[in-house]
Amino acid sequence: MGKKQRIYLGVVGAGKVSPEIYEMAMAVGREAAIRGWIVVTGGLAGVMEGAARGARDAGGLTLGILPGGDRNEANPYIDIAVVTNIGHARNAIIAHTADGLIAVDGEYGTLSEVAFGLKLGKPVVGLKTVWTIPGVVPAENPKDAVEKISKLMMKRAVGPEK
Amino acid sequence: MGKKQRIYLGVVGAGKVSPEIYEMAMAVGREAAIRGWIVVTGGLAGVMEGAARGARDAGGLTLGILPGGDRNEANPYIDIAVVTNIGHARNAIIAHTADGLIAVDGEYGTLSEVAFGLKLGKPVVGLKTVWTIPGVVPAENPKDAVEKISKLMMKRAVGPEK
Amino acid sequence: MGKKQRIYLGVVGAGKVSPEIYEMAMAVGREAAIRGWIVVTGGLAGVMEGAARGARDAGGLTLGILPGGDRNEANPYIDIAVVTNIGHARNAIIAHTADGLIAVDGEYGTLSEVAFGLKLGKPVVGLKTVWTIPGVVPAENPKDAVEKISKLMMKRAVGPEK
Amino acid sequence: MGKKQRIYLGVVGAGKVSPEIYEMAMAVGREAAIRGWIVVTGGLAGVMEGAARGARDAGGLTLGILPGGDRNEANPYIDIAVVTNIGHARNAIIAHTADGLIAVDGEYGTLSEVAFGLKLGKPVVGLKTVWTIPGVVPAENPKDAVEKISKLMMKRAVGPEK
Repeated sequence: MGKKQRIYLGVVGAGKVSPEIYEMAMAVGREAAIRGWIVVTGGLAGVMEGAARGARDAGGLTLGILPGGDRNEANPYIDIAVVTNIGHARNAIIAHTADGLIAVDGEYGTLSEVAFGLKLGKPVVGLKTVWTIPGVVPAENPKDAVEKISKLMMKRAVGPEK
Repeated sequence: MGKKQRIYLGVVGAGKVSPEIYEMAMAVGREAAIRGWIVVTGGLAGVMEGAARGARDAGGLTLGILPGGDRNEANPYIDIAVVTNIGHARNAIIAHTADGLIAVDGEYGTLSEVAFGLKLGKPVVGLKTVWTIPGVVPAENPKDAVEKISKLMMKRAVGPEK
Repeated sequence: MGKKQRIYLGVVGAGKVSPEIYEMAMAVGREAAIRGWIVVTGGLAGVMEGAARGARDAGGLTLGILPGGDRNEANPYIDIAVVTNIGHARNAIIAHTADGLIAVDGEYGTLSEVAFGLKLGKPVVGLKTVWTIPGVVPAENPKDAVEKISKLMMKRAVGPEK
Repeated sequence: MGKKQRIYLGVVGAGKVSPEIYEMAMAVGREAAIRGWIVVTGGLAGVMEGAARGARDAGGLTLGILPGGDRNEANPYIDIAVVTNIGHARNAIIAHTADGLIAVDGEYGTLSEVAFGLKLGKPVVGLKTVWTIPGVVPAENPKDAVEKISKLMMKRAVGPEK
């Protein structure tokens, strides 16, 4: 009995990134897994793969919410693959499923996830994001990003019900 | 026979706006209807209602893509109401359905629609938008916004296939 | 002012059908359009095309809710095309949007639409359907189907709120 | 490295069931978990809860794909909760995610999941289902159901690509 509530961290970013950004995503995934969080991503390459890989390396559990209809599109570091076949609309599911989001670099798809996260009142931390969106908390590096989202998620959990 | 292709203009913005913004949305809707375009919105209040109302006033056709499960949530200026019941994920459907988007003012939901539009390679014009997103073409006023999106949609229609 | 509520009839069936079934779908569309109803379909070929074509012939308005991401997949008799890109999940949107459903012949996709319609408490009439589902009202021919769904939709509209 | 492909079994059925049906769902979940499969359900009560509970009892992993926007709606036996907020349309995601489906008893929502499963060419086994749908393989009891779906999923995995 007794469902121990686990924390879900969404890590969002582009599917095609530089090695530097991939490393950052890995570090974010690692830090999240160390804290026992489930790492949720869109399940594909780039930042999504880096975050899942880092989490896996640290013994974490990774959840990939795929846009297409084929499970094999998931990167090799996804433990649980959800095959949505609803395309970009699956970005809303990532935002709903996560307790907070860290955006790493990112392109327009990432921006939609950030927007949904903010719309839903979830904390969103940005690492190397190119746009400036009010509500997104900037971070210096992966460790800083995870520490910031941790505090923000905690605050929200104990805060007044909206 | 012969399906005359019609143009679908998405007008996106917040559900709660000042009278000034509502007037702007009406003007955008009016200008679009005069050109024979179908005006697509999220079907609710605020900018969505203003745009539909303006389009209706000018004899245009209005399409509302609702987030909830109840058709009665549509504003009174919607001719065709699509009841999605998929919540914020319906924002992706608006972007897919439209040939181009005009964002008026707007909040985080609007930002997700803008992001999806850009992701899909659709032209996006911003009117009084608060964030600065690369790819969004700023406009001075409703007429300017409609003229700009018109040129951009035309260019895309005749442009090279991506 | 004053939104005149229009009736939305969903016509569901397979995308590949015999000429006989296509004719039946056309007749259903025609009868619906004569009554001033909007005909909602999945927007593709087969029964979806027949119903839209019949409705168009009789001067009706047709709404196609497409599964894919390309408006050009719509059959030529669709007036308003909604591009969902959410695949089979769009079947739920057809059921939500319609006041009642007529299933003509049909395969597994149709069955999901019938199931959603019944789940939502909407009247569902079956014409030449192969499965026997409790709750689906069988009809003899297209005219009978439209008359039956008309009475059922009326009854539901004036019935007690659930 | 090397993603060991796991099997996802969807267990679908009503949210409100008799103790007898709940027991059956538990037995199905248990048998699936013993085989090392991930048990996928809609995450709510009734058959969904029974299946997850049985799987958990046997040390299995359970995935719940929720229709609403609140993770707390998940039953206490769900390990991974996906918050879709897309309502009944999430039934399509369950069918896409699963390698095969076992329907236990069931109502109209279940029927939509069965229909999607068959539409996607996935094996579907029925246990105490009320409707007779061509393509659904009937089973005598939970053990029989799991053995049948096991053979069918195996056959499909090694069969010719469609």
